Amino acid sequence: MTDAPRSPLTHLDADGRARMVDVGGKDVTDRSATAAARFLTRPDVVALVRSDDLPKADVLATARIAGIQGAKRTSELIPLCHPLALSSVSVDFEFEESSIVVTATVTTTGRTGVEMEALTAVAIAGLTLHDMVKAVDPEAILDDLRLIAKSGGKRGHWTPGP
Amino acid sequence: MTDAPRSPLTHLDADGRARMVDVGGKDVTDRSATAAARFLTRPDVVALVRSDDLPKADVLATARIAGIQGAKRTSELIPLCHPLALSSVSVDFEFEESSIVVTATVTTTGRTGVEMEALTAVAIAGLTLHDMVKAVDPEAILDDLRLIAKSGGKRGHWTPGP
Amino acid sequence: MTDAPRSPLTHLDADGRARMVDVGGKDVTDRSATAAARFLTRPDVVALVRSDDLPKADVLATARIAGIQGAKRTSELIPLCHPLALSSVSVDFEFEESSIVVTATVTTTGRTGVEMEALTAVAIAGLTLHDMVKAVDPEAILDDLRLIAKSGGKRGHWTPGP
Amino acid sequence: MTDAPRSPLTHLDADGRARMVDVGGKDVTDRSATAAARFLTRPDVVALVRSDDLPKADVLATARIAGIQGAKRTSELIPLCHPLALSSVSVDFEFEESSIVVTATVTTTGRTGVEMEALTAVAIAGLTLHDMVKAVDPEAILDDLRLIAKSGGKRGHWTPGP
Amino acid sequence: MTDAPRSPLTHLDADGRARMVDVGGKDVTDRSATAAARFLTRPDVVALVRSDDLPKADVLATARIAGIQGAKRTSELIPLCHPLALSSVSVDFEFEESSIVVTATVTTTGRTGVEMEALTAVAIAGLTLHDMVKAVDPEAILDDLRLIAKSGGKRGHWTPGP
Amino acid sequence: MTDAPRSPLTHLDADGRARMVDVGGKDVTDRSATAAARFLTRPDVVALVRSDDLPKADVLATARIAGIQGAKRTSELIPLCHPLALSSVSVDFEFEESSIVVTATVTTTGRTGVEMEALTAVAIAGLTLHDMVKAVDPEAILDDLRLIAKSGGKRGHWTPGP
Repeated sequence: MTDAPRSPLTHLDADGRARMVDVGGKDVTDRSATAAARFLTRPDVVALVRSDDLPKADVLATARIAGIQGAKRTSELIPLCHPLALSSVSVDFEFEESSIVVTATVTTTGRTGVEMEALTAVAIAGLTLHDMVKAVDPEAILDDLRLIAKSGGKRGHWTPGP
Repeated sequence: MTDAPRSPLTHLDADGRARMVDVGGKDVTDRSATAAARFLTRPDVVALVRSDDLPKADVLATARIAGIQGAKRTSELIPLCHPLALSSVSVDFEFEESSIVVTATVTTTGRTGVEMEALTAVAIAGLTLHDMVKAVDPEAILDDLRLIAKSGGKRGHWTPGP
Repeated sequence: MTDAPRSPLTHLDADGRARMVDVGGKDVTDRSATAAARFLTRPDVVALVRSDDLPKADVLATARIAGIQGAKRTSELIPLCHPLALSSVSVDFEFEESSIVVTATVTTTGRTGVEMEALTAVAIAGLTLHDMVKAVDPEAILDDLRLIAKSGGKRGHWTPGP
Repeated sequence: MTDAPRSPLTHLDADGRARMVDVGGKDVTDRSATAAARFLTRPDVVALVRSDDLPKADVLATARIAGIQGAKRTSELIPLCHPLALSSVSVDFEFEESSIVVTATVTTTGRTGVEMEALTAVAIAGLTLHDMVKAVDPEAILDDLRLIAKSGGKRGHWTPGP
Repeated sequence: MTDAPRSPLTHLDADGRARMVDVGGKDVTDRSATAAARFLTRPDVVALVRSDDLPKADVLATARIAGIQGAKRTSELIPLCHPLALSSVSVDFEFEESSIVVTATVTTTGRTGVEMEALTAVAIAGLTLHDMVKAVDPEAILDDLRLIAKSGGKRGHWTPGP
Repeated sequence: MTDAPRSPLTHLDADGRARMVDVGGKDVTDRSATAAARFLTRPDVVALVRSDDLPKADVLATARIAGIQGAKRTSELIPLCHPLALSSVSVDFEFEESSIVVTATVTTTGRTGVEMEALTAVAIAGLTLHDMVKAVDPEAILDDLRLIAKSGGKRGHWTPGP
């Protein structure tokens, strides 16, 4: 229908229409992706969340479970993502003075990568932190959500440039 | 079971266990919330996405629909959120030289606020942008996701401090 | 942003962008809607499905349950639909020589109508019939899916014109 | 269509067909329900799960979150249940020598009760315990899942007979 | 349990009970299916929807995304469908004077066909058109929803008879 | 981070944190699992449910469909379960004087077992029976939910000890 140059955006067809791109011809390989973000809050709120290391608080476990479940629902949430049988999902937290670093790693053996699954796990875990601290810090920020490594597929290992 | 001071984290009971807090006694009022984030990419990618203003490209419509649908699924994604009958959801995009600002506003008439719904709409719309540009810019970042206004409920209108 | 006349399509804003329209100002009233479609197949297939009236066959029960569950998921499936607390859903079947008429009625007490819920119930029940007979009649057709009555809301009772 | 006596099973119409019964005429009242079950395993497995009281183990938090989320999805899982805006959900565990008692309480302000939501919360929390211990005790049993109290609605407070 | 002849309806067991039929012994092959329907409305409504070709209107993009997402949820909506890892989904629209033809093509590499996924994509895209035009044309009809081609599996390529 | 002995609970990492364990290195084999439970009620209620064998009642079909659909959603409900492409699901009922035995068998060709899918199918089918009889027997109990056989994977065939 058009002679215009095809968009480099692979999720669009030659007419610019969204479609779920065909991965049927791609190889089934082991693939992994890691994403991270930083949840910015206040030192006292970090202390409240850290008390998760005491016997009784469920804050981080709740965020971790939410992230893992979010990864499994990526293809429902992101319209053009392919459903994938995930092999593993892990979500971790590291504490800084006034922030919490959220990291997620996802692996699969499949025809397409799991970048979006790793990013979704971090986003949902981070939003769950937001939910749990919003009564004490409504100004918290989920910052710098991005892919930090991936491997597998045609391009092999990838990390962001310097 | 404990004499320890109760955590100021409202989603935890006196023993630090997660629960869905009781909103049965809260008033049914009109409530709204607005959240925003900035999607950081490159000028050439912003140009590709902007071509959405040409007749053919579905990039922004896809991200907008994903954000609206994400808002409706907030209580499935964020474990301690209450299901809410949303009255409206809108998602908007503004272009900067090498970034796209994503904003979402959600309203309800209910017993609890829609902050998480607005944040979720922005996160899912932003992740959908990630998905659509990741083949050309795997280093894109969803940055500065936060609440920028809310109204309704006991505290009335709120915006972040200076 | 525009002086162009606003589209009469209510799900679009003044710029033509999709949004979930605000129903916060609409009255909470009792509302109902009925939709129907005709599933076109062959007389021998109708006979197979009718054997559902014998003690053992689950065909119609399966389609009926699918339709009821589909109605409850309308706001997940149709992007700009509002979540609604449905009061009742029923799905019925009538047999003709070589077709099956599927009808669904949905009611709610809420701020917006249940037309889409009734249409979705009929569509999912009809697709389930498709699924169950497709090995014997891959040419079956779901035909004439439409709204046949609604009531409640600002316009009161409605039926299609002659 | 029939003169046969109507089934006392309220989810069936006069012809025995399943439908979502009409609750549009029922009063909006505060309602609550509590359900419980006993997860039967071995003393050493109870000890492993209890170590959840030490700083590091996520077993009970995972089961609790699963139960809370399960309660919110009851109307998707149980075909004839009505969608309900839950006001609160809590899930608790008590330890016995070789079993763990799971209890859930759910409240709403609505037109129908939350018995199924409480039972679903306990079932999903119990199944999650199953999942977490199945490598060490594949013979674990979820036993005696039942309603132990409800209140609100036409019949007021209810507990099982002696 | 019975000597009665087995129903030719493959989704029923020898006693007429619904079950998800075993596809474990079927070959993993490339499979595709295409379905279509005609959305019947008025010429002025077709013109409103077509304005989607102008820069601003999201009508068709919304219906297309809904159809793609619907295809991915087929096994949740149609009770006896198998979950499948879809390789691609596309949804297209063609305009006639007073109708819009909706077509969807789905592919997979798997043990069972994607007919229901293609039919579901068309149905959900068509229902979304219904939703978007219902304020101006409540009498719109989704007509002639059927399978128009499939390939892969034991029977190879199939199209409807003349 | 710790020298403590690793928990035998395989869903926890060395620090006791929940994660979705990596099954990427496990073999793809045919796997099956069967679970069962007993729904305890009264003789008159069993008689009402059994009338399902008469032409008109949908009770068991509703519970069976709910169980089959529940099996397909196991990885959404049980936080650390892997998504699996199920090959078959069947749910059966047997009548005793004052109870109903619910059994489910699930098969897959995959990297991990389907025990949780079989248990979930039985639980959801049993809860649906609860829902359908709760107006006549609110004291009904779902009892003795457990795995009764599994095969496939590293350990081959398994049944509970005597």
